[in-house]
Amino acid sequence: MMPEHLTRFRVRYPEVDAQGFVHHSRFFQYFEIGRCELLRSLGHSYADMERQGVLFVVVRAECRYRSPARYDEELTLLTRVARQTAVRIDHAYELRRDGTLLAEGLTTIACVDRAGELQPIPDFLKGPEKRKG
Amino acid sequence: MMPEHLTRFRVRYPEVDAQGFVHHSRFFQYFEIGRCELLRSLGHSYADMERQGVLFVVVRAECRYRSPARYDEELTLLTRVARQTAVRIDHAYELRRDGTLLAEGLTTIACVDRAGELQPIPDFLKGPEKRKG
Amino acid sequence: MMPEHLTRFRVRYPEVDAQGFVHHSRFFQYFEIGRCELLRSLGHSYADMERQGVLFVVVRAECRYRSPARYDEELTLLTRVARQTAVRIDHAYELRRDGTLLAEGLTTIACVDRAGELQPIPDFLKGPEKRKG
Amino acid sequence: MMPEHLTRFRVRYPEVDAQGFVHHSRFFQYFEIGRCELLRSLGHSYADMERQGVLFVVVRAECRYRSPARYDEELTLLTRVARQTAVRIDHAYELRRDGTLLAEGLTTIACVDRAGELQPIPDFLKGPEKRKG
Repeated sequence: MMPEHLTRFRVRYPEVDAQGFVHHSRFFQYFEIGRCELLRSLGHSYADMERQGVLFVVVRAECRYRSPARYDEELTLLTRVARQTAVRIDHAYELRRDGTLLAEGLTTIACVDRAGELQPIPDFLKGPEKRKG
Repeated sequence: MMPEHLTRFRVRYPEVDAQGFVHHSRFFQYFEIGRCELLRSLGHSYADMERQGVLFVVVRAECRYRSPARYDEELTLLTRVARQTAVRIDHAYELRRDGTLLAEGLTTIACVDRAGELQPIPDFLKGPEKRKG
Repeated sequence: MMPEHLTRFRVRYPEVDAQGFVHHSRFFQYFEIGRCELLRSLGHSYADMERQGVLFVVVRAECRYRSPARYDEELTLLTRVARQTAVRIDHAYELRRDGTLLAEGLTTIACVDRAGELQPIPDFLKGPEKRKG
Repeated sequence: MMPEHLTRFRVRYPEVDAQGFVHHSRFFQYFEIGRCELLRSLGHSYADMERQGVLFVVVRAECRYRSPARYDEELTLLTRVARQTAVRIDHAYELRRDGTLLAEGLTTIACVDRAGELQPIPDFLKGPEKRKG
């Protein structure tokens, strides 16, 4: 099974726009938190990886907004690896308030070195199927 | 022809992340600037429209990142209406630094009232074809 | 004794600037989280208060930066009420990473109505001394 | 006379909070734009200076808020050097909408090397009095 992780957080005041809703650009920052927490739950730290020259850049991001989120609401974000190749990882996201689906997201990140050149994802980040092989 | 607009702006320091690049979530804020400036070039103000109860919410947003943007670079953003229905507008975006394409985006916004219910896009915002009819 | 509260949180990636440090403007957003969590610890919700027409605006903010904060570090923020008048509250803040003091802040917030006019702070928010009287 | 610069910019949508006003933390980002533009008006680029190992960190920041700023308003920011020592520069700011004073700010920045150690401000950034001496 592909790894997944459930993150819980509360909407902060400056994340909310003049309509009273979380600004649509913020959802991508929430998704990034989800990716980092998924990584942490697998025993890795993105901060450490950057120090070792393993960087990830976002090459594609997409979100469908179903229902607005408001200040101070407690949200849950389900992050899962949808697909992984030698250099890329697709993550899928579902953001909910209690049972209500607020947004669905999809991102593709690519592994690069400090110069920004594509490099293979390190073995320790490979999914269970890959590790078995 | 569908309306389009070219906006020029400079990358601000806090828009750049620890990798030295504009954070991917910021591109959606740039696209929003593009939409507002396109509207302004047509003689309308989004601030005024909100005061009159004509709100737009983003229901879908997508971006493909081609090349990074850095602090203090001057960028140009081409924003155009790709498609318009009775209640929705699709915008397409191309963000460039000189000739280099940095990102391509797509958003769908929907017209809602203060209660968040869908409402028809006002006549004065209808495209030239619609106005002709 | 004046109320105080200790909040714990982790630095998010887009909060860090191109120097690799939390941007100085972000500290004021952390302080705001501290104020909200202090309020919550006293049994109140700022979101509810806004819905009831009790708003607070920041009229003064100050920060002295001692040491930088980095991505993914876990920080603790001590927020306390330093002084309270009929319409204003001064909060003092100490942001730390383990024992190290990163920043000291001070804000003054004023209680206003929906029209932005000063109004007295509601009784339920008055300090213990005031409530005794 | 100490150098000063007048910057003009428009409030962007995600800079405005749920009260409909520019969030107080954003004013410090505006002040940073003012510092950079003042530097640019003197023929220097902060981006270039960082690449040469001349970094500035904010060691103190303060703002007094007089009147709120709203989405899409065009603001003018007067930035001036208030005081300069061998390693520190104090800037003072006045943010206005037409004649109305919205905020007054003060920051102290210190010159550091890549390791974060204090270093003397380069000669080319010294004020006219210093250069004369």
